[in-house]
Amino acid sequence: MSKDKGGARRFATVPVALGDRSYPIHIGSGLLGWLGGEIARHTKATRAAVVTVPAVGRRYAGRLLPSLREAGLETGQIAVRDGDSHKNLREAARLYDALLDFRADRATVVVALGGGTVGDLAGFAAATFLRGLPFVQIPTTLLAMVDASVGGKVGVNLPRGKNLVGAFYQPRLVGIDIDTLASLPVRERAAGLAEVIKAGLLWDAAFFEQLEGNAENVLRLKPEVLLPTIERACAIKAEIVAEDERESGRRMLLNLGHTLAHAIESLSRYRGILHGEAVAIGMLFAARRSEALGLCPPGVAGRVERLLGRLGLPTDLPPYPRRAYLSALRVDKKRRDARIQFVALRAVGRAETVPLTPAEILPAGE
Amino acid sequence: MSKDKGGARRFATVPVALGDRSYPIHIGSGLLGWLGGEIARHTKATRAAVVTVPAVGRRYAGRLLPSLREAGLETGQIAVRDGDSHKNLREAARLYDALLDFRADRATVVVALGGGTVGDLAGFAAATFLRGLPFVQIPTTLLAMVDASVGGKVGVNLPRGKNLVGAFYQPRLVGIDIDTLASLPVRERAAGLAEVIKAGLLWDAAFFEQLEGNAENVLRLKPEVLLPTIERACAIKAEIVAEDERESGRRMLLNLGHTLAHAIESLSRYRGILHGEAVAIGMLFAARRSEALGLCPPGVAGRVERLLGRLGLPTDLPPYPRRAYLSALRVDKKRRDARIQFVALRAVGRAETVPLTPAEILPAGE
Repeated sequence: MSKDKGGARRFATVPVALGDRSYPIHIGSGLLGWLGGEIARHTKATRAAVVTVPAVGRRYAGRLLPSLREAGLETGQIAVRDGDSHKNLREAARLYDALLDFRADRATVVVALGGGTVGDLAGFAAATFLRGLPFVQIPTTLLAMVDASVGGKVGVNLPRGKNLVGAFYQPRLVGIDIDTLASLPVRERAAGLAEVIKAGLLWDAAFFEQLEGNAENVLRLKPEVLLPTIERACAIKAEIVAEDERESGRRMLLNLGHTLAHAIESLSRYRGILHGEAVAIGMLFAARRSEALGLCPPGVAGRVERLLGRLGLPTDLPPYPRRAYLSALRVDKKRRDARIQFVALRAVGRAETVPLTPAEILPAGE
Repeated sequence: MSKDKGGARRFATVPVALGDRSYPIHIGSGLLGWLGGEIARHTKATRAAVVTVPAVGRRYAGRLLPSLREAGLETGQIAVRDGDSHKNLREAARLYDALLDFRADRATVVVALGGGTVGDLAGFAAATFLRGLPFVQIPTTLLAMVDASVGGKVGVNLPRGKNLVGAFYQPRLVGIDIDTLASLPVRERAAGLAEVIKAGLLWDAAFFEQLEGNAENVLRLKPEVLLPTIERACAIKAEIVAEDERESGRRMLLNLGHTLAHAIESLSRYRGILHGEAVAIGMLFAARRSEALGLCPPGVAGRVERLLGRLGLPTDLPPYPRRAYLSALRVDKKRRDARIQFVALRAVGRAETVPLTPAEILPAGE
């Protein structure tokens, strides 16, 4: 681990231990300029198809592509449409077409350069084109860095619901260049931080306390806190996913706040609210509900609310009618029969799933 | 293993050993009537979506559905369009929609009842809907029984090529009811037998000799030879796939005859020729080419030609221009750079891959 003059670490690696599907997450500054060699080494590919949206491509492809070519890979750049509304089967079909034009074969690595949407879409194409090409993720948003880069969830939306089609497909390598956060609007940084806070809240009380001490400095991208924060958030998720790759048990804990978040996003038709913002609301809701059910001691929800509030994250449930929430909860895809595995808190740093009906999650009169 | 009065076995199980993705292939007569309990036991599902084409559903769903319901599963039947031309992303989207209508969740097993096309399409939907539902295959054609039921290859076609999108996704169980072959036209039985002959030719000389002795009786569905023939063909494929689930090495041997077969199918636009017929032509071509290259002793191609001929299978390369074949070979998806891993014979029962360019596979003037 190298240190610069100020003593801040410049580079870290988080291993994701999944047997023969294990891979490293490299985190650092200036990473785009040397990642090509790592990609060549981890994939043995001879060609790289870099999938990105135009705005990200204009900004960062110029750093990544030369590094890939220096490593001996033939490169191509494929632009996909920006925005979650284009994360669908039609855009996947366009991407397959572009891969055919690039003459992609099984020695071609698909490199997703961008936010969560690009990673999900390109990852789904990588998982399914020719029954699977090697895949590398280079997330450029804080949310994608701490969330999408661990776990191997890839997929697209259907008209009737989000992420209904996809796969568990692990990348060979994730490269996080923290320099790319400089161009990320503060509101999106805060939304990404909501998932970081979630990781602490469900798994690591000391990390949650650290964030209570320095969250604003993460938001301001202070290097001495930014890198270790991303590193710890990735490591927590890696630890949980390593125990439960296909989400049959403990991995469900990562859904803390997400049952309500999905309902809020669906009711708002994904307009005007970022995913991390919906998670912030859902996470506080889960904390309050856990207190009300006597599952965790009073005071937890207050700490969550204060921390989220300091970052300007929303905390109040949008005022849709209760019956609208109930009906949105019923289509949650983790539903198994009538009950939902609701993630509740036992304390700061400790979560567990509780099977609840929608009406128990959202009792009348609250 | 039970025997009937005539001494013929009525039931067999072939294990497919793939670690935690291992599964059994049950083969027998009257299987549809009792498979429900096995499906419930192997999948722990509470609901079953039986995917089939109308003609097969009319004939066999009435035997399968009551057995599923007796085992406590809630059942639904989903009809997909018949024919390889409907094995595409659009039909997959219709199938996702039907699964949503059925309120399929992760405790829902997708049961493919039909030929290879239904298995590929339903398997792809099972592999990708909600990132993967349990999957069971009940093949009703000889080709699907001996080929698609082992290996976990699922997928759909793109307008620019067959099977370009898909996954390796193992079923929890395969159930082969040999009674369903009675309704299969003789031409399709022979085409399925081509894949059986291929298994012997590339892996098991004694099995190939057996087929030289009794192929007509398999074609006539004589029970005393039909069941052990299907059993051995499945076991050979299972043995190879167990060594190489993701087709990086030995599994390529199963492509014997397929390089040319794919070119023939593509040039004929998949009209007028069955897959097994194209494989018959490609397999004989590979035998002849192997002799010409000095890789195997003379006489092998002659034995292959006589056996295929007795079953009425085609053996001559359709008379497209050489340049058309060359260009069709160049889009073969197993292509790695310019050379194709061509499967050649060293003897009856022994195959190996040889990297050849399209022009070496099909030299001028031959």
